[in-house]
Amino acid sequence: MLDFETLVRLVTSTPDDPQIRDAFADPVLDEATIARIVTHLPAESLPIIAALLPSERMTEVLSQLDHEDAARILIELDHATQVAVIDAMQPDDAADIIASMSEPDRVRIIDSMPEDEAQELAGLLTWQPDTAAALMTPAFVAVSPRLTADEAIAGIREVAEEFESVHDVFVVDKEARLIGVLALDALVRAPGTERVSRLMSGNPVSVRVSEDQESAARVMQDYDVVTMPVVDDNDVLLGVIAHDDMLDVLEQEATRDIEQLGGSQPLDLPYRRAGVGVLYSRRVWWLLALFLAEAYTGTVLRHYEGEIEQVVALSFFIPLLIGTGGNVGTQVTTTLVRAMGLHEVSLRDMRWVFLKEVRVGLLLGATMGVVAFLRAQLLHVGVDIGVVIAVTVLSISIWSAAVASLLPLALGKLRVDPAVVSAPVISTLVDGTGLIIYFSIAKFLLHL
Amino acid sequence: MLDFETLVRLVTSTPDDPQIRDAFADPVLDEATIARIVTHLPAESLPIIAALLPSERMTEVLSQLDHEDAARILIELDHATQVAVIDAMQPDDAADIIASMSEPDRVRIIDSMPEDEAQELAGLLTWQPDTAAALMTPAFVAVSPRLTADEAIAGIREVAEEFESVHDVFVVDKEARLIGVLALDALVRAPGTERVSRLMSGNPVSVRVSEDQESAARVMQDYDVVTMPVVDDNDVLLGVIAHDDMLDVLEQEATRDIEQLGGSQPLDLPYRRAGVGVLYSRRVWWLLALFLAEAYTGTVLRHYEGEIEQVVALSFFIPLLIGTGGNVGTQVTTTLVRAMGLHEVSLRDMRWVFLKEVRVGLLLGATMGVVAFLRAQLLHVGVDIGVVIAVTVLSISIWSAAVASLLPLALGKLRVDPAVVSAPVISTLVDGTGLIIYFSIAKFLLHL
Repeated sequence: MLDFETLVRLVTSTPDDPQIRDAFADPVLDEATIARIVTHLPAESLPIIAALLPSERMTEVLSQLDHEDAARILIELDHATQVAVIDAMQPDDAADIIASMSEPDRVRIIDSMPEDEAQELAGLLTWQPDTAAALMTPAFVAVSPRLTADEAIAGIREVAEEFESVHDVFVVDKEARLIGVLALDALVRAPGTERVSRLMSGNPVSVRVSEDQESAARVMQDYDVVTMPVVDDNDVLLGVIAHDDMLDVLEQEATRDIEQLGGSQPLDLPYRRAGVGVLYSRRVWWLLALFLAEAYTGTVLRHYEGEIEQVVALSFFIPLLIGTGGNVGTQVTTTLVRAMGLHEVSLRDMRWVFLKEVRVGLLLGATMGVVAFLRAQLLHVGVDIGVVIAVTVLSISIWSAAVASLLPLALGKLRVDPAVVSAPVISTLVDGTGLIIYFSIAKFLLHL
Repeated sequence: MLDFETLVRLVTSTPDDPQIRDAFADPVLDEATIARIVTHLPAESLPIIAALLPSERMTEVLSQLDHEDAARILIELDHATQVAVIDAMQPDDAADIIASMSEPDRVRIIDSMPEDEAQELAGLLTWQPDTAAALMTPAFVAVSPRLTADEAIAGIREVAEEFESVHDVFVVDKEARLIGVLALDALVRAPGTERVSRLMSGNPVSVRVSEDQESAARVMQDYDVVTMPVVDDNDVLLGVIAHDDMLDVLEQEATRDIEQLGGSQPLDLPYRRAGVGVLYSRRVWWLLALFLAEAYTGTVLRHYEGEIEQVVALSFFIPLLIGTGGNVGTQVTTTLVRAMGLHEVSLRDMRWVFLKEVRVGLLLGATMGVVAFLRAQLLHVGVDIGVVIAVTVLSISIWSAAVASLLPLALGKLRVDPAVVSAPVISTLVDGTGLIIYFSIAKFLLHL
C-alpha cells in the first residue's frame, strides 16, 4: 500500500503509473483520503483524476472536494457518468458543484436528469448563496405526529435507501409545518405503540431559509444540533443542514477573518488553487489604499523637517516608535475582532472594552517606556532625548490601544465587517498620528 | 417574556428582580440561551446565577458554559446540589469543570460521589490536557458482533437511560477491541434477525487516546464522523468524542491562531473574562521582544546618519517604505499560516509557495513602485529621489514576500507553531532589513 505523500507525488509526476489506479481502487484507501490527495494536487493534475478513479467512488470523493475542484473533474467525465454521479449525490453538494460549472454544461446535465431531481436541483440553484438555503439538502425524513413508534420506524425503513444516514426524524403537521423533532435513539428506545406526538420534543430549534449561513451555523453550534431544520416564513419544513456543512461554514468564516486581519480580501478558495493573478488581485487594493494612507507620514515628516535637521537623532527612533504603536494596536484589534466574531462582545460593551484596553495600553506603555529610555542611552543620544522617547512610547501605546479598541466596535455599528481593521490598517492609522505625537512631545520637551 | 439584552441587563443591575427568576424557570427560555446570557455577564455576577437558576436546569446550563465559569457557579451551591449536578453531567464535562476547581473542593465533591462514578472521574482527571483523552467521555454503547439486530436494539434500550443521545453503536470483540461501527439508522432499517457483524462497517475511523486534540478534531472533520471512538494502543475502546466537543476544539484552535497572528500569546479564556492583568501578561513579552528587535532600526539609521544629514528628504519616506514592506509580508504570512493550519500546505510545498509568493511580491512591488514615484513627485523631492523610492518599494516588496513565504514553513519544520510569525513579527523583521535596502539603493543611485 502506497502512502499519502507517495501517491500525491506519483499522480503529479507519472500519472500513467498503474500503481495509482490500483491504489485508488483498493478499498483500504478510503474516499476521505482520496479527497485529501486530490486537494494536494496541482490544478493541472485534476483532470487525470477523472480517468484514474473508479466511477463507483466518484460520487463520494467529489462530494468531499472543494466545489470548484469537483466541477473541474466532473467536466472530464462522459455525459452519462456525469449525470449518474450528480444524481447519486446529496442535492446540496450536487447544486454547489453544478453552480461552479459553465451555463451550457449545467443545462446539459440538469436536462438529462430524472424530472423531479432536475426540478429539485434547479430549485436549489435559485437560492441566494451564503444563506441557510444554500447549505440545506431537501432530503430529510418527516413523519406525522399521529403515527406510533412502530409505524414511524416502518416509514423510515421504506425511505431509507434514499438517505446516507439519518440522525433525527422531523415531525410535521398536515400543512408540512415543523412541529417537533424526534431523535432516532428516542424512537428506538420507545415502546412500539407510543405515539410520535408523545415522543417528540416540541419547539424544535430551526432557522429561516433566508438566514445568513454563518448565523445558521452558529445556532447549530450553540444548540448542539446535528441536523438543523430549515423552514420558510410559515414554518413549513424545506430542508435540513447537515453538521459537516455547518462545520465547513464555520471554518470558512474563520479563514475569511484571518485573511482579512492580514490585510487582504478573503481568497474564498483554497490557497493551493489561488494563482499569482488571484493573490495579486486580492491584495493589491488594500496595499494601495494603505500606501496612500501611509503617504501621509511623508507630509508629517516634511512638516517637521526643521526639527529633524536640528536634531537628526530624532529620526533614529521613528521606526521603533511607530512600530511599537502598530504592535500594541494589532494585539488589541485581532483579539477584539475574534471575540466579536464569536459573539462574545458587541457594541453595547464598547465602554468597558475601551476602559480595559486603555488601562492595558497604559501598563504596556509604561513598561516599554522604561526600556525605551535605556535603549536611547545605549545610542548615546542624551538624557533629554531619552525622556522624549520614553514619554512618546507611553503616549503612543495609550493612543493606539484607544483607537484599536473603538474602531472594530464602531465599524460593527456601521454594519462593516470589523475584520477589515487588519494589522496593516491599524499600523497605518497609528503611524501618521504617532509621528505627530512624537514631534509634538519633542518640540515641547526639547524647546525646538 | 423578557428578551436576551434585557435579561443580561437585569441580572447585572438588579439581580433581586423577581422577573429574572421567573424567566429562568420558564421552559420557553431554553438552556442554551441561559448559557449565552451567563457568558455575557461580568465575572462578579456569576455567583448570583447559582441562586437564580432552578436546580433542575443547572446541569444542562453548566455543561454548556466555559469550564471556569461553570466552576465559579458550582462553588456557590450547597454540597449536596454540587454532587448531584456533577453526577448528572456527561463525565467529560464534569471532569473539565472539576479540573478548574481548587484541590480541596475537587476532593470533597469526588469523595461524595458513588464509587464507580468517582473512579471514572478520577481516571479522566489523570489524562493529559489537550489530548483526545481529555475530550472523550467513557459513556458509549458497545455491542458484540454476534448479536442480532433485535438483540442489539434491546441492549441499547436497557442502557438507554444513561445516555443523552446515541448516534452510533460501536462493535467490540471479546477483548473490548474496536472492530466496527454501526449507525443507529442502519440498525433500525435492518431485518431483526440480521447479525451485527454483517451490518457494521469494519475498519472504523478512530483516534489514539494520546493523540493531540486538534488532530483528533481534524480527523473527525475529514471523515465526517459524528461520534469518534478513542482507543488505546491495543485498539481497546476507551471512550468517544462527541461532535460538539470537536467543534469547540476547532474553534478554540482558530482563536489561538488569530490571537497569535495578532502578536500576543493566546488568551485561552474568553475575552470577557480576561482582566487587565491577564491581557498585560499575554501581550507584554512579545511587545518587549519586538521592541528590542525593532531597536535595531535605530542602529541602522545611526549608521546612515551622514546620508540623512545630506538628504533630509530621505527620512520622509522611512515610515512609508518599511510600512509597505510590513504590509506585503503580513498578507503573505497570515494567508500561509491559515493554509498550514488547515493542512492545505506543508513543508514539502516550500518551493512552489516561495516561487508563487515572490512573483506576487514582484507584481505588487511594481504596481506600488509607480504610485510611489508619483507620490515622491507630489512632495517635490526631485526625480532622482523618486527613482530611489520606486526601486526601494519594488525591492522591499520582493524581499518581504520572500521572507514571509519561507519563515512559517521553516518554523513548521522546527516544530514551532507557525502562527508565531505574527503581523508584528514580520513587520519588525522587514523594518530593519528594509532600511538597509533603502539606504543602499539611495547611496548607489544618488552617489552619496
